[in-house]
Amino acid sequence: MEKFSRNQRVSAITKTLIECPNKVINLNYFTDLFNAAKSTISEDLVIVRDIMDKLGYGKVETIAGASGGVKYSVSISEEKINIFVKKLCLILQEKDRIIPGNFIYMTDIMCNPQIVHMAGLTLASKFMTLDIDYVVTVETKGIPLAYEVARLLGVQLVIVRRDAKVTEGATVTINYVTGSLKRIQSMSLSRKCMNKGSKCVFIDDFMKAGGTALGIIDLLKEFESELLGIGVLVDNKENPEKLVHDYYSILDFNGIGDDGSAIVVPSIC
Amino acid sequence: MEKFSRNQRVSAITKTLIECPNKVINLNYFTDLFNAAKSTISEDLVIVRDIMDKLGYGKVETIAGASGGVKYSVSISEEKINIFVKKLCLILQEKDRIIPGNFIYMTDIMCNPQIVHMAGLTLASKFMTLDIDYVVTVETKGIPLAYEVARLLGVQLVIVRRDAKVTEGATVTINYVTGSLKRIQSMSLSRKCMNKGSKCVFIDDFMKAGGTALGIIDLLKEFESELLGIGVLVDNKENPEKLVHDYYSILDFNGIGDDGSAIVVPSIC
Repeated sequence: MEKFSRNQRVSAITKTLIECPNKVINLNYFTDLFNAAKSTISEDLVIVRDIMDKLGYGKVETIAGASGGVKYSVSISEEKINIFVKKLCLILQEKDRIIPGNFIYMTDIMCNPQIVHMAGLTLASKFMTLDIDYVVTVETKGIPLAYEVARLLGVQLVIVRRDAKVTEGATVTINYVTGSLKRIQSMSLSRKCMNKGSKCVFIDDFMKAGGTALGIIDLLKEFESELLGIGVLVDNKENPEKLVHDYYSILDFNGIGDDGSAIVVPSIC
Repeated sequence: MEKFSRNQRVSAITKTLIECPNKVINLNYFTDLFNAAKSTISEDLVIVRDIMDKLGYGKVETIAGASGGVKYSVSISEEKINIFVKKLCLILQEKDRIIPGNFIYMTDIMCNPQIVHMAGLTLASKFMTLDIDYVVTVETKGIPLAYEVARLLGVQLVIVRRDAKVTEGATVTINYVTGSLKRIQSMSLSRKCMNKGSKCVFIDDFMKAGGTALGIIDLLKEFESELLGIGVLVDNKENPEKLVHDYYSILDFNGIGDDGSAIVVPSIC
């Protein structure tokens, strides 16, 4: 049977861990793959753990016991968040992003995998310790970001729909009032989507007054589940009176400046 | 300045490459990070390249020239695809997935990051050589899969909407006829979403008669852009007459069996 060098094993182990964040991987997976002793793999893991730690790339933990193994959790340094957020502010300040009605065009950003990855990493690292079961979002624009947060936290994504769909089986629909325009809206979630007694975070692209987040809290009550955190990419500070108070945002939007570009600054959290 | 061992560098380089598929990373990024000579990094890259190749984990290429560097492209072996697809068939055959109207409940699968990653890897590896600019999908259920394919191909995601939205600026809306129910539907895409003359692949969760895919081809014509490939998770073989012919699917759905469970088999492509 083929033999692998330590360098080779370390590279392959790193790839496997990075692709399964927050999931426990049994050491047997690696001993079988490399035809190596557990002690050898354990030494490899120490190398991976130390370099991830040294560079702020995340945490590698070994978990003892029958269901034990090794688990990688993502992290990102404050310095890297700052660099990312400042770059993103510059992108959002581009003048041609302002569209009639003084909206800021963000669709390309919410669909750019590199930006979504960095934003997802930023939000996932804030919610890492909450031990949640689901990342919840409302269709449509926040889905890539919510998916990325779910992937990085190693949990299931739940997409709340604007209307009940025939392909979703029995659904729960609630009505809620949007905080900004005071319009009645509804949202639906399939009964099959979530177990009772779950812990969730809500991820979205944009927070206006927080009516949607409040709606999510109500909807989760129907599933006897709880919202433990809220994370958005952009907080619209033009709506200073929020219906929810405990949330994390990456950027603040303060309206349109005299020069016709968006006033966007890093959020202070 | 701190020194890093080869093992440490190999681990950190692997992580960086895996997180930026299909993007060229300048070698200076690594020489600066590790305070190491270019020749040292080149040797590290040979190690990473060889083990990725040996295990079928993807391809590491060095690109010469001023804008050169190193690029990682994903791949997956036929054997791994087979194991994944067989497991997925078993999940879809669970009896409680059949919901009134003889629909198959797949929402949880389309929102499970581990399944989406494997399905995304399968589709991305099929479209790797097409050198596309965008991965296109239609809201809502296919978005996580399409995002994953876009991420793995290192390109932008484009989400086509069912209705034009005020936050998207000028949009192009087309009408199309669904192939299965012969209903008129519309889809909209923001002008800002796509450059003219782009090459795209369309990713979706489910193919019935292919009316949506045909609509996408029409919509892309309005952007003077071209559809080079179509990839879906499930092909509904109950609609044998397809409006599009050149597409890739992972699973075939052949209706509901006498035992009340879905008849799902790996697609032959």
